[in-house]
Amino acid sequence: MTGTKVETAVALGALFAPRTVAVVGASADATKTGGRPVAYLQKHGFGGAIWPINPKASEIGGLPCYPSVSALPEAPDAAIVLLGADRAHIAVRELAERGTKLAIVLASGFGEAGEAGLERQRLLREAAGDMRILGPNTIGAMDLHSRIVLSASGALEGEDLPAGGISLASQSGGILGALLSRAAARGIGFAKLASTGNETDIDLADLIEFYAQDAATRVITVYVEGIRSVEKFRAATQIARAAGKPVVVFKVGRSEFGARAAVSHTGAMAGEDRVYDALFRQCGVIRAETFGDLLDIPAMLVTGRQMAGKRVAILTSTGGAGSLVADSCGMGGLEVPLLDDATAARLTDLLKADEPMTGNPVDVTLAGVKPEIMTASTEALLASDEVDGVVVIVGSSALAQPEIAVQAIKSGAAQSGKPIIAYVSPHAPHIVRELNLQGIPAYAAPETCMVAFSAAMPVKAAVADAPVAPHVAPAGLRKGTLNEVEARELFAHYGLKGADQRLVQTAAEAEEVARTFGGKVVLKVVSQAIPHKSDVGGVKVGLVADTVGKALDDMAEHLAAQDLPRPEGFLVQKMLTGGLEFILGLRRDPQLGPLILLGAGGVMAEIMDDSAIRLLPVTEEDAREMVGELRLSRLLTGYRGGAAYDVEALVAAILAMARMGESLGERLSEAEINPLFVMPAGEGVAAADGLAVID
Amino acid sequence: MTGTKVETAVALGALFAPRTVAVVGASADATKTGGRPVAYLQKHGFGGAIWPINPKASEIGGLPCYPSVSALPEAPDAAIVLLGADRAHIAVRELAERGTKLAIVLASGFGEAGEAGLERQRLLREAAGDMRILGPNTIGAMDLHSRIVLSASGALEGEDLPAGGISLASQSGGILGALLSRAAARGIGFAKLASTGNETDIDLADLIEFYAQDAATRVITVYVEGIRSVEKFRAATQIARAAGKPVVVFKVGRSEFGARAAVSHTGAMAGEDRVYDALFRQCGVIRAETFGDLLDIPAMLVTGRQMAGKRVAILTSTGGAGSLVADSCGMGGLEVPLLDDATAARLTDLLKADEPMTGNPVDVTLAGVKPEIMTASTEALLASDEVDGVVVIVGSSALAQPEIAVQAIKSGAAQSGKPIIAYVSPHAPHIVRELNLQGIPAYAAPETCMVAFSAAMPVKAAVADAPVAPHVAPAGLRKGTLNEVEARELFAHYGLKGADQRLVQTAAEAEEVARTFGGKVVLKVVSQAIPHKSDVGGVKVGLVADTVGKALDDMAEHLAAQDLPRPEGFLVQKMLTGGLEFILGLRRDPQLGPLILLGAGGVMAEIMDDSAIRLLPVTEEDAREMVGELRLSRLLTGYRGGAAYDVEALVAAILAMARMGESLGERLSEAEINPLFVMPAGEGVAAADGLAVID
Repeated sequence: MTGTKVETAVALGALFAPRTVAVVGASADATKTGGRPVAYLQKHGFGGAIWPINPKASEIGGLPCYPSVSALPEAPDAAIVLLGADRAHIAVRELAERGTKLAIVLASGFGEAGEAGLERQRLLREAAGDMRILGPNTIGAMDLHSRIVLSASGALEGEDLPAGGISLASQSGGILGALLSRAAARGIGFAKLASTGNETDIDLADLIEFYAQDAATRVITVYVEGIRSVEKFRAATQIARAAGKPVVVFKVGRSEFGARAAVSHTGAMAGEDRVYDALFRQCGVIRAETFGDLLDIPAMLVTGRQMAGKRVAILTSTGGAGSLVADSCGMGGLEVPLLDDATAARLTDLLKADEPMTGNPVDVTLAGVKPEIMTASTEALLASDEVDGVVVIVGSSALAQPEIAVQAIKSGAAQSGKPIIAYVSPHAPHIVRELNLQGIPAYAAPETCMVAFSAAMPVKAAVADAPVAPHVAPAGLRKGTLNEVEARELFAHYGLKGADQRLVQTAAEAEEVARTFGGKVVLKVVSQAIPHKSDVGGVKVGLVADTVGKALDDMAEHLAAQDLPRPEGFLVQKMLTGGLEFILGLRRDPQLGPLILLGAGGVMAEIMDDSAIRLLPVTEEDAREMVGELRLSRLLTGYRGGAAYDVEALVAAILAMARMGESLGERLSEAEINPLFVMPAGEGVAAADGLAVID
Repeated sequence: MTGTKVETAVALGALFAPRTVAVVGASADATKTGGRPVAYLQKHGFGGAIWPINPKASEIGGLPCYPSVSALPEAPDAAIVLLGADRAHIAVRELAERGTKLAIVLASGFGEAGEAGLERQRLLREAAGDMRILGPNTIGAMDLHSRIVLSASGALEGEDLPAGGISLASQSGGILGALLSRAAARGIGFAKLASTGNETDIDLADLIEFYAQDAATRVITVYVEGIRSVEKFRAATQIARAAGKPVVVFKVGRSEFGARAAVSHTGAMAGEDRVYDALFRQCGVIRAETFGDLLDIPAMLVTGRQMAGKRVAILTSTGGAGSLVADSCGMGGLEVPLLDDATAARLTDLLKADEPMTGNPVDVTLAGVKPEIMTASTEALLASDEVDGVVVIVGSSALAQPEIAVQAIKSGAAQSGKPIIAYVSPHAPHIVRELNLQGIPAYAAPETCMVAFSAAMPVKAAVADAPVAPHVAPAGLRKGTLNEVEARELFAHYGLKGADQRLVQTAAEAEEVARTFGGKVVLKVVSQAIPHKSDVGGVKVGLVADTVGKALDDMAEHLAAQDLPRPEGFLVQKMLTGGLEFILGLRRDPQLGPLILLGAGGVMAEIMDDSAIRLLPVTEEDAREMVGELRLSRLLTGYRGGAAYDVEALVAAILAMARMGESLGERLSEAEINPLFVMPAGEGVAAADGLAVID
């Protein structure tokens, strides 16, 4: 024991490139889970030393077997612990004491298994000391380039696991195995894979950061059940972005039932799915919408080719599949435009067509599927300035001669840096595999062609964390739910203006204030004891100087009749008209932390589910995107000749709310302005109500 | 020639069960398209007579070859014409003259190929006389039970094409081939398949009707590029529904680019996709959202098992995949509830668990994947009164012993009529195929499990066509765009009431009317020459008896100043308040015909894209569904303690608009009420404006 925790990079180095590996609880029966790791290490050609440990065996897989960790010739770099949940901690303690860098604990029955399991997990962690742990409840890890497989995954039964540039971090071991076997069948190569299971130590973020710095990794793909530390995840994805490595994430637990299942699976923490959506977007991470996309998108991105625009050209020998792919592209917001004159002329010539070949998809049926025609046509499409990506459709005619399409695509890819993919129309897994092995993404679903191209569009530029404005919290902020006057003062401190208002006590004061304001006013009761003013008749609108006094007396009487305590006063507020109503708030996701919410205000908007959220910190770009996401915002810029509204002031208001959240930190548990009026351009925004809860 | 057109049922009988087949333009080279039909007929074991026709060959595939149609011993039941677009009509004329029932024309270059192609197609149709035609631009047809394959589809190269209960009608031949080869690989069996191509004669509806009456067909699956006759399609799907055979449709051309591609492919007519959506819904047809669903949904429905509710139970040996499937089910609106006590107790006992097994997914990992446990667990879940369908997950542990899961599912399926499906987590196509061949739907995408269960929910009961109310059109209806007074009179004739209004000519009349109405009024100019009243200052709201006279004079002056012709008059209309604003209209889709549109009214709602449509005829159930589809309708029944509105009157208004459409037929090209105020419950609805265009 060194007395210092093994650094993450060192531990993961030992995980993916150990010179010596101990297998604690190894079994001589290779069909059992306990027998697999040694068998797989041997089968896939591990070059280092394998040290099986089992007091009941003298030899496993032809290797000498050790009775205990203490009997090993020296500390192993890494170890796999195959003992059950009850005994794993014993081996872990011994390994840690020998100075092992990292131990993989496969057993389940820990954090995901109730109170007793949590206690076992605590014990395991304590036993590990300075040694690092992958798991428990993991299937292990592997490096397909160096054929190091510290895992019991049945997917390693496969003979032919191609190595490539995609590295996987998965919380689920079963999913890792499923992805590995599916990828291998399709000719999609992985670099490194690891499952983190219950994450008592090493988590997804550690792997992402490690992969970001790994030379063999070009794309990082992540299967998420729940993120334990937003800060770590954010930091790791920023490192990956800085390294130019896209991160693709699929998250389970989007529905109530999936979330419950995920929690019982690896003890993952739930969190509202749309908050995850905001997090992924803010991290510049690509979210896979379907499980299949988690392989299909990386297969595209690993080529390193990017779409400079939305324009797709399709080359086909079968009209039906061409329509299908064109339709899917169009449904996903891509374009399949008619060809430019120069390209059309080139194709007309190549295909000896009677009429100009401006059509897209380009159907080569009449000219026949001949190698020179397919190749020249593919090259012509890629060469067009008005084409950003090309799909070559492999039809049933290619079943007999797949090399024609393969050659055309390979030749095209060699001459152009644009994305080029294949859609394989008939059932032809051998063609899909061959294409992928050749570095050509090949798909069997038309929708996936669209998804792949869309994922190859540039992701928004990485943004630095928003600088936290050096805003000092106001002095003397009291705890609890602030009344409207206090909340509005707090908002004003951070630059959020409201409608003109004055606190009054008497009818005469109210009349005087209303006269000063001119026009219509709103009268509201101010009372800590009344959270929902409207419900008790504590709000009246459309009053004027002549009517506000009587309204105040009536309101006071009405409140007294309800046995409500004497209010702190009444608010006379200038009534706003001519603005668009929004709601702006700060809330806390129990798992992911504080977030800003912007929504359309009013009942009508509420039923339309029109809102956008971002986690703190929020940049100006985030704020603009939030505004842009709302359908209500179509009115902001002057819809159908209507007024244009003060978008800049709305953006500033979002940033002010975010600043307040940063400045107050955990003290602010909730804040809301509803409605926030966005006034005509140049006239700013104004809060017409306010709520804040201080802890 | 008989002088009578061959009946569709007779022609399709000859297509799928001919005793004699002529192949015009047969080639001795089986690798060429012209050589395939004879080779495929022989390969797949056709039992009838094959008559190749080719003046240059004496023998093809060991069969005597005829020099011409006239040289045949008798009229063939069916013929495949393999000649090019230029010469096909010659063979077609000869076949028709001999009395052939149906000819398949494979060549392209007809209706999809511009003016010259259209002319060739007209000639072809004329040459066919009383004989029926499949195509042109088709790949042909096949019956996998009787092994009759009148087709050149390369998919017939496959050796092992399982026969089953699904029949396919596809406009595209290439798509037919792709579906056939994909289904065969997955162990999904087809009964009959045909592609209709350009549909100069036999169309999708003919096939649907034929399949509906075909004993071997249990599910009808349809690939649509465009529907040529809504009436035929509607009638055919009704026959299928009456026969208890679900119809599953995938339609390409949802996007602008896909529609353009489809038109150039088979000359399909475009139509707005959401109108197709309404059509499919009204026909009780299931719409496949992805291309893959077009096989995956029929694979479920062909079992004949229906979900009685939304509750899914999941049995798994791999927690990750269990979460994934549970999540997908939840995302699709299904439920994955905790298990009832009796079922939990049964499982606790079976799995020898320490704690009650109420969880769902049910994870059998700890008990191990043993045959008796898997089978008994599956049966226990199916037996639960609180489970409507079961997914058994095949994990990587099943790769070595797939029979364990297969046996559990088969055994469960034998004892229960509930839907039971398999999700295969690792790449294991042999297991997928084996399960499907055994009649167990097996899927490799978690999302598809959800889609399959959802499709197995009962479709709404077939409804008889709405009885056309014997409503006589009003006398003396003039052509052109009706002014508001005329339009409102027309609407009233069909039972659509409006706000009280009176046509006036002078300020004095206006004042008198306003005084009679009491309260606020709206003043509008009435003029055929002014389509958009607001744009020219022809609408003023919020007037009262004292102000309406001057407003009328000002308006008249303002209009005169714009050189507009003298208006027919001015409308004084009672101003409505307290209602919810909708828009109700009748429009015509150029391809699919007249439809009713209901939407949220006002600018706010317009930007929210909140509308529902149905094609005529519209039933009361349709009308209620339309109301239910709008998000705005959440306000109708009293949102958050607000007022409840007159839903019944809104339903009646939709039906009145539909009645008007039925009654006026083609004479009514467009009608719109915007806004239609839906007043508080019991107070009805009122049109506050009206437009109608009469042809």
